[in-house]
Amino acid sequence: MTPLLPGIQGPVDVRALPEAELPRLCEELRDDIINICGRVGGHLGASLGAVELVVALHRVFHSPQDAILFDVGHQAYAHKLLTGRRDRMNSLRQAGGIAPFLDPRESPHDPLAAGHACTAVSAGLGMLEGWRLQGRKSHVVAVVGDGALTGGLTFEGLNNAGGSPLPLVVVLNDNQMSISANVGAIPALLRTREARGFFEGLGFTYLGPVDGHALEPLIAALREARASSRPVVVHALTQKGRGFPPAEADTQTRGHAMGPYEWRDGKLVRSRGGQRTFSEAFAAALEDAMARDERVVAVTPAMLEGSALVDLKLRYPDRVYDVGIAEQHAVTFCAGLAAVGLRPVCAIYSTFLQRAYDQVIHDVCLPGLSVVFAVDRAGLVGADGATHQGTYDVSSLRALPGLSIMAPVVGEDMAPMLATALEAQGATVIRFPRGTLPAVPSELSPGEAPIQGARWLLRAEAPRLTLVTLGPLGLAALAAARAEPGWSVLDARSVSPLDAPALLEAAACGNVVVAEEGTTRGGLGSAVLELYAVHRRSPRVRLMGMPDTFVPHGDARVQRAELGLDAEGLRRVGRELLEAGR
Amino acid sequence: MTPLLPGIQGPVDVRALPEAELPRLCEELRDDIINICGRVGGHLGASLGAVELVVALHRVFHSPQDAILFDVGHQAYAHKLLTGRRDRMNSLRQAGGIAPFLDPRESPHDPLAAGHACTAVSAGLGMLEGWRLQGRKSHVVAVVGDGALTGGLTFEGLNNAGGSPLPLVVVLNDNQMSISANVGAIPALLRTREARGFFEGLGFTYLGPVDGHALEPLIAALREARASSRPVVVHALTQKGRGFPPAEADTQTRGHAMGPYEWRDGKLVRSRGGQRTFSEAFAAALEDAMARDERVVAVTPAMLEGSALVDLKLRYPDRVYDVGIAEQHAVTFCAGLAAVGLRPVCAIYSTFLQRAYDQVIHDVCLPGLSVVFAVDRAGLVGADGATHQGTYDVSSLRALPGLSIMAPVVGEDMAPMLATALEAQGATVIRFPRGTLPAVPSELSPGEAPIQGARWLLRAEAPRLTLVTLGPLGLAALAAARAEPGWSVLDARSVSPLDAPALLEAAACGNVVVAEEGTTRGGLGSAVLELYAVHRRSPRVRLMGMPDTFVPHGDARVQRAELGLDAEGLRRVGRELLEAGR
Repeated sequence: MTPLLPGIQGPVDVRALPEAELPRLCEELRDDIINICGRVGGHLGASLGAVELVVALHRVFHSPQDAILFDVGHQAYAHKLLTGRRDRMNSLRQAGGIAPFLDPRESPHDPLAAGHACTAVSAGLGMLEGWRLQGRKSHVVAVVGDGALTGGLTFEGLNNAGGSPLPLVVVLNDNQMSISANVGAIPALLRTREARGFFEGLGFTYLGPVDGHALEPLIAALREARASSRPVVVHALTQKGRGFPPAEADTQTRGHAMGPYEWRDGKLVRSRGGQRTFSEAFAAALEDAMARDERVVAVTPAMLEGSALVDLKLRYPDRVYDVGIAEQHAVTFCAGLAAVGLRPVCAIYSTFLQRAYDQVIHDVCLPGLSVVFAVDRAGLVGADGATHQGTYDVSSLRALPGLSIMAPVVGEDMAPMLATALEAQGATVIRFPRGTLPAVPSELSPGEAPIQGARWLLRAEAPRLTLVTLGPLGLAALAAARAEPGWSVLDARSVSPLDAPALLEAAACGNVVVAEEGTTRGGLGSAVLELYAVHRRSPRVRLMGMPDTFVPHGDARVQRAELGLDAEGLRRVGRELLEAGR
Repeated sequence: MTPLLPGIQGPVDVRALPEAELPRLCEELRDDIINICGRVGGHLGASLGAVELVVALHRVFHSPQDAILFDVGHQAYAHKLLTGRRDRMNSLRQAGGIAPFLDPRESPHDPLAAGHACTAVSAGLGMLEGWRLQGRKSHVVAVVGDGALTGGLTFEGLNNAGGSPLPLVVVLNDNQMSISANVGAIPALLRTREARGFFEGLGFTYLGPVDGHALEPLIAALREARASSRPVVVHALTQKGRGFPPAEADTQTRGHAMGPYEWRDGKLVRSRGGQRTFSEAFAAALEDAMARDERVVAVTPAMLEGSALVDLKLRYPDRVYDVGIAEQHAVTFCAGLAAVGLRPVCAIYSTFLQRAYDQVIHDVCLPGLSVVFAVDRAGLVGADGATHQGTYDVSSLRALPGLSIMAPVVGEDMAPMLATALEAQGATVIRFPRGTLPAVPSELSPGEAPIQGARWLLRAEAPRLTLVTLGPLGLAALAAARAEPGWSVLDARSVSPLDAPALLEAAACGNVVVAEEGTTRGGLGSAVLELYAVHRRSPRVRLMGMPDTFVPHGDARVQRAELGLDAEGLRRVGRELLEAGR
């Protein structure tokens, strides 16, 4: 099936192939990508669209002496297959296996980590400038998706690169989509002859547009770019999902990311979980809120699918805004909406809200505007790995004046929390994890709006220890505590403000474990310690959470167990704390 | 001297003036701005350049029914003078007085807070979209400096606005500078006919360029923009510092911000402090480091002046990079430089590093790159006020894996800290305040590189209480402790990692006050509490720092006293703590 690929140990082998064999190589790469994603799931669409581009890049540039930076890395499975990682590609996105995105620790052919979009131009310019100072004459290529062109960081990089004399090569892999359709003026511009003027205005020589699936002109354009003594853009038109009919037929995302699938009787069968997710519970609550109150609108920076808002966009095309990969704009746009009396809900992943930290502070909290942030993927994200973990939202946001932070334990918490947030004066964060909804245990009565303070999930009569948790960890705590005499469980529910009376009651028993899926440095546990310092309480406190390292890709359930963030871990730590106190 | 201005209570009065009086009005506004800034200091240059523009805007648009959003607000003194604030303008930038930038709490004519650049287009689009949903037909004008055009947020906003049918009016106040000269391809582009193509490519109707000091064509262009049914850019060419010869002659910044000044014998006399600042001490240390090690380079996003790097840029034009208003790019560019073995030092204010939070996490810390962040303006900033306070750097950054955070007490600490940072594996933050350097007390021996752990400034023989501080607060603590028997002072020096042995020793005396110029929520004090929880120590701990509100403009020294962040405050709190423990 793939006679050529086993012979390709690195880019040198790609360059040694006779030109006539390249189409065959591309075919083999596509087969590999389709098979691998069928087995383990992955970012199929962009990688299929970039096969010829990757081959052409490795024909023309000499990685790793030349640096090829794939923005994001969605596009880069063919690059991984050609750079010595093919025999491990079945471990893609799994614990200890090939990384979901690019990772310099994995290969010298990945010059920089790349899980968030828009970084390649700036990082590439830095590398090229560094090499200039060192007298090294290698080439740097930044391969940028058209989706990343709407992101401010890319533009900041282009402005600086275009104003510099350095011959940075920017390859625009234009598949006419980000995760879904692109947004704004730029995508339309790229379809016209004005694209040339736009890039020339930014100081680049413009080559193209070139058919991104036609090897010969593609290689010729890249050769011309390589020979340039000044900044140059190669505009390649590609097709997301190319060569895999089910992806090509997916007009929504062109097979952006797919879970495992298989062919049965000539039909593609995808193993769908079928279970409802936190994202879907949030979307349902939002839909109800929008039906009740026409001031409520939704804004997301290119996370319509991930935040389960596709159907909502169909129902309310006018009140659901996908602003493209533009996290800063998403938040400041919400500030503008809120300033005239609307109630914007910004749906964004924890890791991408990092991009808009200043906008949350300066544009929303400072003027005291009422914006709701639905922070998805808070905590462990599993296969997407280190770049996507939702680790820092609580610690970075809880200091902001007037901002409230809540977290649901079960899907049933979502509606009252959203209602509370929409009634609040000032900004509110509702943080929830990636994953399916847990069952509601008998001990837990979903609250009613307005949500006020913490919630006891279990209250021992003669309490010896309290497990204080945030989010679904409350269920693990409940499972741990049921069999332990004298253990209570307090769902903090709100990190900011904290429920002081409930937490002081928790302290009274003398032993408190605070557990959260986020960093312990400055997180909920830290807030509890601050509260106890103010009130001069000194229970024994143990903080549990995500570690002081970047957590790699893997199975989130396994990782929770490894980090002690499950029933067994909480039981063990609680017992240790009691033991130590004797 | 100013016969017209007393009659102007608001924009209605501007519109009622006969057209022939407008040049006179502009002259009066300039006189006022020059006199006010002479008395109290302020952002002179941009405001002088925007006088005709502001008058024209208030002739054509009807604020506050129409919203006029001045990006940043440097440009907006004439706007303040015309919107009912003239009688209070002598209180500009002073405690309780007129705000340095724009503030919706100050006036209905300031629709949004604006102290950080680049927010106007996104916020304006949000307001216009909100009004559309509400059926309101008012106009929104975003007045954007050309300096803000290099910032990614502006571009994200333009892409979305240009792709929308809403008639957002963007006025480009092009004075050809940000704080200093602009950077990159865009400034050059604006000087050519290609400017039209650029904005048209982004979906805007382009009007101009128009002389920004010629009222008649300016008003005509704005009228045309107001009548537009789609997004439109008015490109106005202005002159920063216009009408005030000392500013016009300042080719470096055109009088961007000036302290108080007066005329004596026909000469302008500026009251210069003359004392050396923390920024200058940092710049001197950096200059030495660059002389010793050619791998060391400096990067700043438009803060050459503020970070005292102007002379360094002259000495090393090739190794000092001003990337313009582009904070995200600055950090990711540093990541690229570090990836090829250089040692970049990113000079940035605490408040603007918020803009690059994700880039610090994803592009620097995740791959473990060695970038030094010289975080200036950390803590209270005085007259620049709420938008510029350096409050959140420690709390947001200390959770990041591999990132070290240090703070100097005196200028002499800067060189060994920078040397330590440049030798470190991984990222380092050195945070220091705005202001002049303190004298070195006899108790303090500046450390030598590598800086390791905390430093006892005073160590009581029979300790009853320890003041743990960060940065120059150590000197206030020393002054407080000298007269108190049994009081020790520990300069934490490094927030991350913490010096556990020293802090445990501090705990042993039973009473610890932790004081820092930053939020107490998740800051140094919080880190100390986490450490004590891990080691099961329970001293009485009191945290002191910036409050859970946005601190407005004022005299930083006075504000420190109000917040207890001076010797007297620390003495009082220490005594209270001892009293409570009896």
